[in-house]
Amino acid sequence: MLPMRHETESSLLLPTEAPAARVLNAHGRAPAVLICEHASRFIPAALDGLGLDEAAASSHAAWDIGALDLSVELMGALDAPLVHSRISRLVYDCNRPPEREDAMPQVSEVFSIPGNMNLTDAQRTQRVRDVYEPFKTLVSSTLDERPEPPVVITIHSFTPVYKGTPRTVELGILHDKDDRAAQLMLSHAESSGLRVALNEPYSATDGVTHTLREHAVRRGLPNVMIEVRNDLIDTAEGVNRIAGLLTPILQSVIQDLSHAEAKP
Amino acid sequence: MLPMRHETESSLLLPTEAPAARVLNAHGRAPAVLICEHASRFIPAALDGLGLDEAAASSHAAWDIGALDLSVELMGALDAPLVHSRISRLVYDCNRPPEREDAMPQVSEVFSIPGNMNLTDAQRTQRVRDVYEPFKTLVSSTLDERPEPPVVITIHSFTPVYKGTPRTVELGILHDKDDRAAQLMLSHAESSGLRVALNEPYSATDGVTHTLREHAVRRGLPNVMIEVRNDLIDTAEGVNRIAGLLTPILQSVIQDLSHAEAKP
Repeated sequence: MLPMRHETESSLLLPTEAPAARVLNAHGRAPAVLICEHASRFIPAALDGLGLDEAAASSHAAWDIGALDLSVELMGALDAPLVHSRISRLVYDCNRPPEREDAMPQVSEVFSIPGNMNLTDAQRTQRVRDVYEPFKTLVSSTLDERPEPPVVITIHSFTPVYKGTPRTVELGILHDKDDRAAQLMLSHAESSGLRVALNEPYSATDGVTHTLREHAVRRGLPNVMIEVRNDLIDTAEGVNRIAGLLTPILQSVIQDLSHAEAKP
Repeated sequence: MLPMRHETESSLLLPTEAPAARVLNAHGRAPAVLICEHASRFIPAALDGLGLDEAAASSHAAWDIGALDLSVELMGALDAPLVHSRISRLVYDCNRPPEREDAMPQVSEVFSIPGNMNLTDAQRTQRVRDVYEPFKTLVSSTLDERPEPPVVITIHSFTPVYKGTPRTVELGILHDKDDRAAQLMLSHAESSGLRVALNEPYSATDGVTHTLREHAVRRGLPNVMIEVRNDLIDTAEGVNRIAGLLTPILQSVIQDLSHAEAKP
């Protein structure tokens, strides 16, 4: 008798849609690793666009606008590896653990996500297995294969207007328990001319530091989460300008920390 | 007495706008090098947008829409280095030698380029020195530092409608004197489902194979120029789909050629 086929046995991604995550510049020489969890708004064909209209599917709800472009620029400028997801966070938010309800959100800011309503356990398991696990495994192996302990830097962007309220901060520097890199970055960023704030527009208490915690804090690696307001990086000019401002700041942070002791 | 200062002594690029060209994934392991000459529509602040309106500045005249996104995808999928320009081809077209009039075009398709009218020799020299030369040097050093002779692959995109005429070809495969890689690619691409054509929508006789000639033919390296219709790669979904189709084709070409003799 043939074994029963479960929904979770088939892959969510077509062969041409895989892999769910990728490492670029894997052999980069800086003692740092860049991570971009919300790099893509790609929704696998099997999910039929999650029932979203074009406005929602191209909005900040689906991805961090400009974050991959900025990450690729920083990767080149710093010569650091970059690990990024290739799947929309509305399919699975790789900066959330599987047990979190908002890993597959039913509502994101003002958008409701039809394709995420009433997910079965099998559907949730499939997304964890095919989107989150490959990302997590790739981040882990990239960190473990570095020749020296890297600084872990996650790159995000945020919307200038959230639920109708404008945000004036331009650069948010966020940390979890280990704030070494964040404090250093804050001090180096003061002369950037950007409106900088610590732990804005979110903070660890909002549950946004999963990657830092899962991958960096656990390994004792210094780490920081960067949030850039997305209207600053939604054009080529903006990406170049912000990358030009962040590069010397991050070089200083990496330099200051590259000989730091791993924090137990 | 102080020496006279010439216009060409100051850099066209601000420190935050440099470098003019970049190599990504420099230590990638595939015996191939990807090149994207028209990756960016960035115009240095000193040139005041070349006098273009937003429609022209964001059009295919200023850059190859989607080409960098596709190149980064292929770079990751193939694990090949990628060299790309970071400056708009309207400032300097890195796929043209300095003596060509259209290296700094006064007209591109239907757009006239006010900032390129009546350029002085000093202005032309500055653009060559600050945009073309760094790109050329970086391509050369990247090729020369590869541990084995690479296949040279340039990535371009073209507009679906040119001077009012629709183009039906989806994937153009172009070659210069050495057609080894192009013929192999053509044979492997037949089953892709794409409308493929050799030497369309341009060919070497249009002067579009400068990079191939300058860097690959001269070194005896197999080479091919890829042109993708830009409406196929102007979204994340499109880039993933085309990258998914091109990856196995290029892997086959690289595999077939990686042990080929250098062609004198």
